[in-house]
Amino acid sequence: MSATGAPLGHDRVVIAHGGGGELMGRLIREHLVPPLRNERLAGLADGAVMSWPGGDLVLTTDSYVVTPLEFPGGDIGRLAVAGTVNDLAVMGATPIALSLALILEEGLPLDLLDRIIKSVATTAHEAGVEVVTGDTKVIERRTTPALSVKGEQPGAAAPQEGLFVNTAGVGRRRPGVRLDLRRVEPGDVILVNGGIAEHGLAVMSVRSGIEFESVLRSDVVPLNGLIAAVLDSGADVKFMRDATRGGIAGVLADISEGCARTVEVHEARVPLSRTARHAAEMLGLDPLTVANEGKCVFVVAEKDAARVLGACHAHALGADAAAIGRVVDRSPPLVELVTRVGGRRVVQRPYGEELPRIC
Amino acid sequence: MSATGAPLGHDRVVIAHGGGGELMGRLIREHLVPPLRNERLAGLADGAVMSWPGGDLVLTTDSYVVTPLEFPGGDIGRLAVAGTVNDLAVMGATPIALSLALILEEGLPLDLLDRIIKSVATTAHEAGVEVVTGDTKVIERRTTPALSVKGEQPGAAAPQEGLFVNTAGVGRRRPGVRLDLRRVEPGDVILVNGGIAEHGLAVMSVRSGIEFESVLRSDVVPLNGLIAAVLDSGADVKFMRDATRGGIAGVLADISEGCARTVEVHEARVPLSRTARHAAEMLGLDPLTVANEGKCVFVVAEKDAARVLGACHAHALGADAAAIGRVVDRSPPLVELVTRVGGRRVVQRPYGEELPRIC
Repeated sequence: MSATGAPLGHDRVVIAHGGGGELMGRLIREHLVPPLRNERLAGLADGAVMSWPGGDLVLTTDSYVVTPLEFPGGDIGRLAVAGTVNDLAVMGATPIALSLALILEEGLPLDLLDRIIKSVATTAHEAGVEVVTGDTKVIERRTTPALSVKGEQPGAAAPQEGLFVNTAGVGRRRPGVRLDLRRVEPGDVILVNGGIAEHGLAVMSVRSGIEFESVLRSDVVPLNGLIAAVLDSGADVKFMRDATRGGIAGVLADISEGCARTVEVHEARVPLSRTARHAAEMLGLDPLTVANEGKCVFVVAEKDAARVLGACHAHALGADAAAIGRVVDRSPPLVELVTRVGGRRVVQRPYGEELPRIC
Repeated sequence: MSATGAPLGHDRVVIAHGGGGELMGRLIREHLVPPLRNERLAGLADGAVMSWPGGDLVLTTDSYVVTPLEFPGGDIGRLAVAGTVNDLAVMGATPIALSLALILEEGLPLDLLDRIIKSVATTAHEAGVEVVTGDTKVIERRTTPALSVKGEQPGAAAPQEGLFVNTAGVGRRRPGVRLDLRRVEPGDVILVNGGIAEHGLAVMSVRSGIEFESVLRSDVVPLNGLIAAVLDSGADVKFMRDATRGGIAGVLADISEGCARTVEVHEARVPLSRTARHAAEMLGLDPLTVANEGKCVFVVAEKDAARVLGACHAHALGADAAAIGRVVDRSPPLVELVTRVGGRRVVQRPYGEELPRIC
């Protein structure tokens, strides 16, 4: 059954295809990449690197379909700019310019559009990047059924406003950066720059109408400054990725698969605010699988871990940074969580639709 | 009244905001550009030029919301690739790489998606450009009211499938190209590479269920090869633009406004197939305002007009190329059509919703 009650076979797109999990991976690997196959696309990274005289270029793109359009801590405009800037930054690129393409649904209030465009401008300024070109399309208004999501009261906050945003970004790759999962070895340390799960939980709390004792706010923020500080520290970063859809669990699975090693993470070391933990419990969600929009996972050799931590702690966006685990020489390659009470459980890459329309 | 019957004031987005006409221009000038203001965006060209060591970069983006997704002569995938390649080409850039971002609606048949992705690949190959990065989102299925368009039977072909495509493109600007409407002078010649209005009429004929004696096919095609041939001819092209939404009328208005001169076009010289003319008459549309996806308007000094025509005529996509008019020294700056019977009429930039969801 689909979210809207229509029976859907395997021959049609289902909501879970968009969740950033295993099902989306299969859609991309089986339906999208083969016809388009080329060397750069096959990498399936957050963006593509192109040789260019005077400095390699990175190109990346993301569409945003989040609902509601405004949520505590951000909105779809901030999300779009930060998300694309972050995709460039984790490729080791300095963002140069963004494009902004809007699909507006008939009936969208112009004052809401104005607020979102202002947020685009503010976030771009914050990231030090310009929106240099754009496109606008309008689609007819459509009747939208309420999203039906685990832990969500159906119809509680049916989206009334339609706006889809795409941002593409061009960046210039920093010389000397060697990001490659094949360089990752046993003993390498895994770090994250702060408390997880805040974006997904903030959006979900609005949708579900649940209020928590402290206000949950999305962590959505451009990370290019923090990432530049980490790279400037001289640490030899082997891999970094912002943990969006699929959460930290998705990135840890990428690391484990990419280097064919087990990744061991300690639950007690993973930064998670008391409010976020409480919210995840109430909503029945594993915070490791919940989306972030301002968190980056780094992999470095043990000798460089203190440099990364130091650079993070000296930056406003890394005050709660922590080393959360390491790569170990165990087969088969899995993501293992050492729980607070000392048990172990395997962390699965989320399959599909934990949180539709989360970004 | 909106297409769906809801009353819409001026404080909300209406379908006409997306038509490529005057209303869309105002939306962009009043709501989008001011908050984002920077030197490059203010130009409102098809893309932005960025200085880059080793050759200036051009970045462009377009979203595609056409319905139906497949139409005679093309589909949304071909449209997306050709459209973005053409935006780069008319900026004087050689396309280097494209991104592809898909928003899939729950329920989209996977075999339809497969056909469209194959079409993306085929068109990219035709244009000599690679799709190097992408993104996929899924949105819940929504009930779509039939489009209500002039000349269209309501509900005749209500879209059942949901797919929005964004392509962004990066290109390298050819050295020596000096595209600038301020260089346009009285006496300069305006040319187009072939028969107009075919894309819009092909899409409309499917939507309306009207059949014509010959099949109308969209002209959607990558123009980068033709445009390279024109530039290689040595002609000093002062301005070129592909005539998409808003049709040839929109581009002529851009030229007239940009150089503050009157543009005089001869109806009898504008290439228009018999089938297209017949279809436009039946649908009650002015072919000058109907969308094209494979037609470029060039402005050159009179001495260079023969070179452009020669280069076009030697190319498969320019067999029907023609000089259709010229820039004249008359005030106020208008677009004037000299009709077949020798009368004159002012050609207005289309106001809004001639053809929603046309690209």
